[in-house]
Amino acid sequence: MTTHAPLADLTDDELTAFLQDQQGAYDRLRAAGLKLDLTRGKPSPEQLDLSDALLELPTTTKDRAGTDVRNYGGLEGLPELREIFAELLSTSPAQVIVGGNSSLSMMQATIVNFLLHGGIDSPRRWADEENVRFICPIPGYDRHFSLVGSFGIEMVTVDMRPDGPDMAAVESLVRDDPSVKGIWIVPTYSNPTGAVVSQEIAARLAAMPTAAPDFTIFWDNAYAFHHLTDDEAKSADILSLAAASGHPNRAIAFASTSKITYAGSGVAVLAASEATIAWYLKHLSMASIGPDKVNQLRHVQFFGTAQGVRDHMARHRDILAPKFAAVDAALTDELAGRGIAEWSRPTGGYFVNLDVLDGTASRVVALAKEAGIGLTPAGASFPHGHDPRDRNIRLAPSFPELDEVRTAMAGVATCVALAAGEQVAARRGLRVGTGQSTS
Amino acid sequence: MTTHAPLADLTDDELTAFLQDQQGAYDRLRAAGLKLDLTRGKPSPEQLDLSDALLELPTTTKDRAGTDVRNYGGLEGLPELREIFAELLSTSPAQVIVGGNSSLSMMQATIVNFLLHGGIDSPRRWADEENVRFICPIPGYDRHFSLVGSFGIEMVTVDMRPDGPDMAAVESLVRDDPSVKGIWIVPTYSNPTGAVVSQEIAARLAAMPTAAPDFTIFWDNAYAFHHLTDDEAKSADILSLAAASGHPNRAIAFASTSKITYAGSGVAVLAASEATIAWYLKHLSMASIGPDKVNQLRHVQFFGTAQGVRDHMARHRDILAPKFAAVDAALTDELAGRGIAEWSRPTGGYFVNLDVLDGTASRVVALAKEAGIGLTPAGASFPHGHDPRDRNIRLAPSFPELDEVRTAMAGVATCVALAAGEQVAARRGLRVGTGQSTS
Repeated sequence: MTTHAPLADLTDDELTAFLQDQQGAYDRLRAAGLKLDLTRGKPSPEQLDLSDALLELPTTTKDRAGTDVRNYGGLEGLPELREIFAELLSTSPAQVIVGGNSSLSMMQATIVNFLLHGGIDSPRRWADEENVRFICPIPGYDRHFSLVGSFGIEMVTVDMRPDGPDMAAVESLVRDDPSVKGIWIVPTYSNPTGAVVSQEIAARLAAMPTAAPDFTIFWDNAYAFHHLTDDEAKSADILSLAAASGHPNRAIAFASTSKITYAGSGVAVLAASEATIAWYLKHLSMASIGPDKVNQLRHVQFFGTAQGVRDHMARHRDILAPKFAAVDAALTDELAGRGIAEWSRPTGGYFVNLDVLDGTASRVVALAKEAGIGLTPAGASFPHGHDPRDRNIRLAPSFPELDEVRTAMAGVATCVALAAGEQVAARRGLRVGTGQSTS
Repeated sequence: MTTHAPLADLTDDELTAFLQDQQGAYDRLRAAGLKLDLTRGKPSPEQLDLSDALLELPTTTKDRAGTDVRNYGGLEGLPELREIFAELLSTSPAQVIVGGNSSLSMMQATIVNFLLHGGIDSPRRWADEENVRFICPIPGYDRHFSLVGSFGIEMVTVDMRPDGPDMAAVESLVRDDPSVKGIWIVPTYSNPTGAVVSQEIAARLAAMPTAAPDFTIFWDNAYAFHHLTDDEAKSADILSLAAASGHPNRAIAFASTSKITYAGSGVAVLAASEATIAWYLKHLSMASIGPDKVNQLRHVQFFGTAQGVRDHMARHRDILAPKFAAVDAALTDELAGRGIAEWSRPTGGYFVNLDVLDGTASRVVALAKEAGIGLTPAGASFPHGHDPRDRNIRLAPSFPELDEVRTAMAGVATCVALAAGEQVAARRGLRVGTGQSTS
């Protein structure tokens, strides 16, 4: 492993030479005319191919009970698929609903229900509250933030740490303020840091006193089975923890097969207390006569069992793990020791979290874009897209091919080094060459 | 065709004999131990079989433009499917979105958008209005009524006539009251009467002055292509009519393939002005990363063209028309001339509307239930399930086999005659036998 000297320790001459080197590397990068995309956590075609047996399924049109899956009905989803997900999520089939192709849609429907009808434990519907606030651990998933933001829900941030949200901050926020109604949690291999919520923090979330009787944990377990190493994280059983703490309706869990089978054509899952399931179905019955049961039976036949899901995920890991290793290798090669970047080495999930020098993330993303490397906009992992330190970049290496990941990440590392060099040089008052690239 | 004497013209002795006959017929019916279901407009297995080629589709995973349909994206739906529906709905692809498996879900999402965000022409979001009222032509579709009712929207009824809603009543309601925000319309082969909204009435709906600037026609064209005879109704082009009247955003149309391919696994469509499409997609983007494009491509390959849809509907007609004829035959046989029932002879759609003697619909449904014939609850086609005259029954003959429709409808006719006989006899003060069946 190459280790470089910290940028801050370079003499002015060394820094000038470093900048010239990086500028040269960047000019070559730009000249290469790349067109690579690291913006979103999309599965690659090779991963999607793993599920192409779906195209020949189902081989029958009746489920186990003899129900014709082609017709209306069955709002809660196919019993055999509920069983598979119940096993995977360590709960009972009665606490699981299987829906359409999007867990995000189930999250939105849940929040709409709270807004327009109120929850089981709500004193009133949220639309009639003066304020509704959500706790947003940062960095986090941009779509969670835009979803609540679109309804005018105020977002209060706490830091996401390697074992979960900063619980002292969370507990203090919920204790006295009844307008704090919810928290977003991606418990396993979180987006974007790869953090795994520990059993202890899950237990504190489940048990903590909250001023709002209907405070709800939106437990988006999107990456529950998406391991990248043998060190497989086991998600905390938030539903049981909440029930055991006397808050049976506090947590609602979500998952989907979007990153298991087909990203656009999978099945989504909601798990909660039986009372919450009844509440959700009651409102869903106004908007639907049932999910796409043919696609659900397709998935039942494809997986067979919960173990079938786990086996399938091992094949994803074989494809994904080298890409994550390539990200780490490229960043290490160029940046290790320079003191200008830190990044995660996740053991699962879809993202690498890259923190660059404060104030340079937007510059890195702009440089990369000019060189044909699409990165998620700087700040995307923060409410309203605003990273107060302008240092956070979410890298999504799943979609490009391995060689492209290597090429793109070497380019990103160059952009990080160049932007950092520019900043350090500017602080020292050094005159630096202004190539076209910095225009 | 048998024609009977009007019940009202029978002597007391004749009426007593009639009642004994009907009671005897009913006792035999009950003894037969039937288990038949005319409750919902579900396609039969034979109809679903018509689409089983879907199970082998799609044969590729790329759309015409080369997009991998297995992955995320494409919120507005596959371009080629938008084109097919644009042709079918006489509009342009830019005015069409293709979604998931449920047009009801698209209607609900639209109303939620109005409630929580407001529409393009809304002075404020509906959640902040003191009152929101919807015009509900009666009899109508129960799920329309329960959907708006679930949000506390007040339902104001007008009569549904053979050519559309009572327009004098509609125009008077919308002219001065800005809280009247919408109207439900099933324009073609309406649920349950089979009425077809005329071009003239569509034009009046499009042009009428409304106190609410965001008054919206929810144009649920669920049965647009569901003809039962050669006399094929052509739906009015409400979007063009509204635009031509200076109200481009007034109408939003919905349709689906739920009664074309698979009832639970079809595709749903929303058509509207381009501004409304942009508004809908903006809010949808908070809740979804895209529809099930594999299922959309499956449908593109299955239909091929708009003409493919029309050809497919002819095969449904072959199965359905004899069932509707059987309903008419059974009712005619037993009830024609008696002056105790009227029913529709729809040229399309899924329902027969049966009006029995005022005050006897609930009794008919109860009698049928006791004899093992499931009917939609009396009053279901009215807001809050309340038919003020207790005379309306919605018959849904699509699901049972033809022989079962014959058997069930002969039974229903007996129940209608018995309930009518009971009522007329009671009014005359005649003592009538109280068999077990009337307990």
